[in-house]
Amino acid sequence: MKVSNASKIYKSVGAEAVLTEAEDLRKYLTGISTSFGYVLSDKDGNTFYTDLRYFEAATNSLKGTDIAVKEFVPPFENLLNGYKEVAIPLGRTLYNDYNKLKACGLEVKDSLPYFTSAMSVKDELEIENIEMACKIADKAYDSLLGQIKEGMTENDVAALLEYLMRGFGASGTSFDTIVAFGANSSVPHHETGFDKLKFGDIVLIDFGCKYKGYCSDCTRTFLFGDDNKHAVFKSAYMHVLNAHMLVKEKLVSGMTGREADFIARDYLKQQNLDKMFTHSLGHGIGINIHEFPRLSPKSEDVLTDGMVFSDEPGIYVAGEYGIRIEDSVMLKNGKVVSLTNSDKKLTVL
Amino acid sequence: MKVSNASKIYKSVGAEAVLTEAEDLRKYLTGISTSFGYVLSDKDGNTFYTDLRYFEAATNSLKGTDIAVKEFVPPFENLLNGYKEVAIPLGRTLYNDYNKLKACGLEVKDSLPYFTSAMSVKDELEIENIEMACKIADKAYDSLLGQIKEGMTENDVAALLEYLMRGFGASGTSFDTIVAFGANSSVPHHETGFDKLKFGDIVLIDFGCKYKGYCSDCTRTFLFGDDNKHAVFKSAYMHVLNAHMLVKEKLVSGMTGREADFIARDYLKQQNLDKMFTHSLGHGIGINIHEFPRLSPKSEDVLTDGMVFSDEPGIYVAGEYGIRIEDSVMLKNGKVVSLTNSDKKLTVL
Repeated sequence: MKVSNASKIYKSVGAEAVLTEAEDLRKYLTGISTSFGYVLSDKDGNTFYTDLRYFEAATNSLKGTDIAVKEFVPPFENLLNGYKEVAIPLGRTLYNDYNKLKACGLEVKDSLPYFTSAMSVKDELEIENIEMACKIADKAYDSLLGQIKEGMTENDVAALLEYLMRGFGASGTSFDTIVAFGANSSVPHHETGFDKLKFGDIVLIDFGCKYKGYCSDCTRTFLFGDDNKHAVFKSAYMHVLNAHMLVKEKLVSGMTGREADFIARDYLKQQNLDKMFTHSLGHGIGINIHEFPRLSPKSEDVLTDGMVFSDEPGIYVAGEYGIRIEDSVMLKNGKVVSLTNSDKKLTVL
Repeated sequence: MKVSNASKIYKSVGAEAVLTEAEDLRKYLTGISTSFGYVLSDKDGNTFYTDLRYFEAATNSLKGTDIAVKEFVPPFENLLNGYKEVAIPLGRTLYNDYNKLKACGLEVKDSLPYFTSAMSVKDELEIENIEMACKIADKAYDSLLGQIKEGMTENDVAALLEYLMRGFGASGTSFDTIVAFGANSSVPHHETGFDKLKFGDIVLIDFGCKYKGYCSDCTRTFLFGDDNKHAVFKSAYMHVLNAHMLVKEKLVSGMTGREADFIARDYLKQQNLDKMFTHSLGHGIGINIHEFPRLSPKSEDVLTDGMVFSDEPGIYVAGEYGIRIEDSVMLKNGKVVSLTNSDKKLTVL
C-alpha cells in the first residue's frame, strides 16, 4: 500500500490528530480533487470525510491507499471527539473555526509550515504532472500563433487558447487567461476584454493550464505585425529577455528568493529599467498557481532541488506598453531546468 | 456621482471603519474584479488600496465614483491607525488577521451579515449581468448540441462548450464544467475526464459562465442516441423534470429555503425517489456561484424578490445513472422567472 501524503504530514507534524479542510491541502493529502471534505489523521490512520456528491468517486479513487472514506456528518467539531490536541493549518483557518475548536477544549497546533515545506518540493509524479501541464501550454501556444487574426478580440484569443489547451489534454486553466493588446499590456494583471487586434499591436498573453490538478504558468509578449513604431519596445524586450535568461543561467539551488530576484532586478537596474519592474520575479507553482517559495526582493525562502517556480521579469510603462517573459522552471541537480519552452525570441506575427 | 455599494455597506454596518479584503466582497463594493486589495470606508469616504498590478486599471475604472484608489503599503493593520473600531467580515476572516487587529487594540465588529443580506437581493445592473450570463450559457448549449459526436471525450465536450461560451461573450466559466458520460453521471460532482462518448450514453452537463463578474448555472441531462435500454432512466427523468417544474410553479416570495426544497423533495418522495435526491434543491447565484440563500431541507433563509438562485433537483443511482435538471431563476413580483431557458424535454441526440 502506497504511503499517502496524509501519513507523511501526520508523521512530520507530530500532533495527536491532524485535521485539514483547505481544498489545496486536501488535494495534496489525498491526491484527489474535491470541493468539500475533511482529512483527519491520527495514530490509527487517515480518514477522508466528504459528502454524497464525492463519496462514490472518492471511495473508488482511494481504494488501495492508506486513506479510508467516510460520509461527513456536521458539525466538524464532532470529528475531534476524544482528542486533546489537534493540528490545523492556522494561517489558513477562519477565526470562527478556530474558536469552535478552542470551545471544545482542544489544544491547537499549527500544521501549515509542514504543508508549505512538503508541498514546495515536488515528488516524481508531481513533476510529471507539471511537466505535462507545461507541454500542453507550449503546444497550445504554438498552435494559437498560427490562428491569430486581425479583428479578433482579447477574449477571442483567450477562448481559443483555452480551447486548445483542453484539446491537448488539460482539465482547465490554472488561472483566468490574460490577453492584453496594445497599451493594455502595461497593466500587469489586465482583465481580458473586447478590444480588437490591430496591425502593429503588442500582444501579451499570460496563461497556464491544469493537468491532474497541477498547474503550468507561462507568459509571452509579441508583435502583431511590425509598424516600425516599436524601437523602444524592442530594446526593452531584449533587456527583459536578457534578465529572464540571466536568472536561468545564474540561479543555483541554495540561493534565497531575494538573491534570485536580484539577478533580474540588478540587470534591469543597469539598463535603467528597474523602476518599471513593478512586481516580483516569481512564485512557486504546484497544486496552486501561487505557492511557496516567493522570489521577491524581500524573500528569505531558500530555493532547493525539486522546487518548481516561475521566472517572470517584466516592465510596464503606463498607457504605452508592457513586456513580461515567463517560464515555469524547476531546480534539478542544483540548476534551473525550463519546463515551458515555447519560443522567446521576439516574435513578429 | 453614483453611490457605490461601499457607501451603502458602510452606512448599514454603522461602525467607525469598515475594512474588506475578501475578493467577492471587494468586487461587490467596488464593482471591479481584482485579485488583491482592501476597501476601507469611514465617515470621510471609501478608499480602495491595491498594488501596482491593478493600480492603473482600478484608477481608470473608479473615476467618477465615490471610491478613491491608493497604493497599498503593508502591513494592512496600518490602514487602521487612529481608529478605535473596525468592522470586518468575521466569518470570512482568518484567525491570524483577526489577531492582528485585536493586537492593535481595535474593537472588532462583524460586517458579514450586512454583505450577505445586501448581496442576495440583486439590483437592476446585477440582474442584467446575470441574465446575460444565462443567455450566453443557453446559446452555447444549443450550439454544442449540434456539434457533439461519438468518440468525443468528456473533456472535449467541456472544452467546446467553454469555447462557445467565450465566443458568445463570456469572460470565463463560473466553475469547472462538469461533463459526465454514462454511469459517471451518478457522481453529482463528477470530475470531467477522458471517457469517450458511445451510442446510448447518458450525458450530464453542469455548466455556467461569467459576464461582467456575474455567474450563470445550468444543468442538462440527455441521451446520446437511444439504445432502448433506458426505460428506468426515462421514467426517472420525467419525475426529476416534474419536480423541477413544480418548484417553478409553487415557489413564491416569502417562503423559506426549506419550504422551497420541500416542494421538490416531497414530490420525489411520492415517486419513491427521494432517497436518491442526495443534495439540496439550490443555492443563491451572483458574484459567487454559491451564495445566500440556501434552498435545503434545513434552511430558514427567506426567499424574496430580487434573489437569484438555482432550481436543481437531481437523482443518482451509484454505478448506473444520474439526472439533474437545473435552471438559474429569480424571484420577481412574488413568482419564479427562469433565466436559463434551453430545452428541458428529454433530448435524444
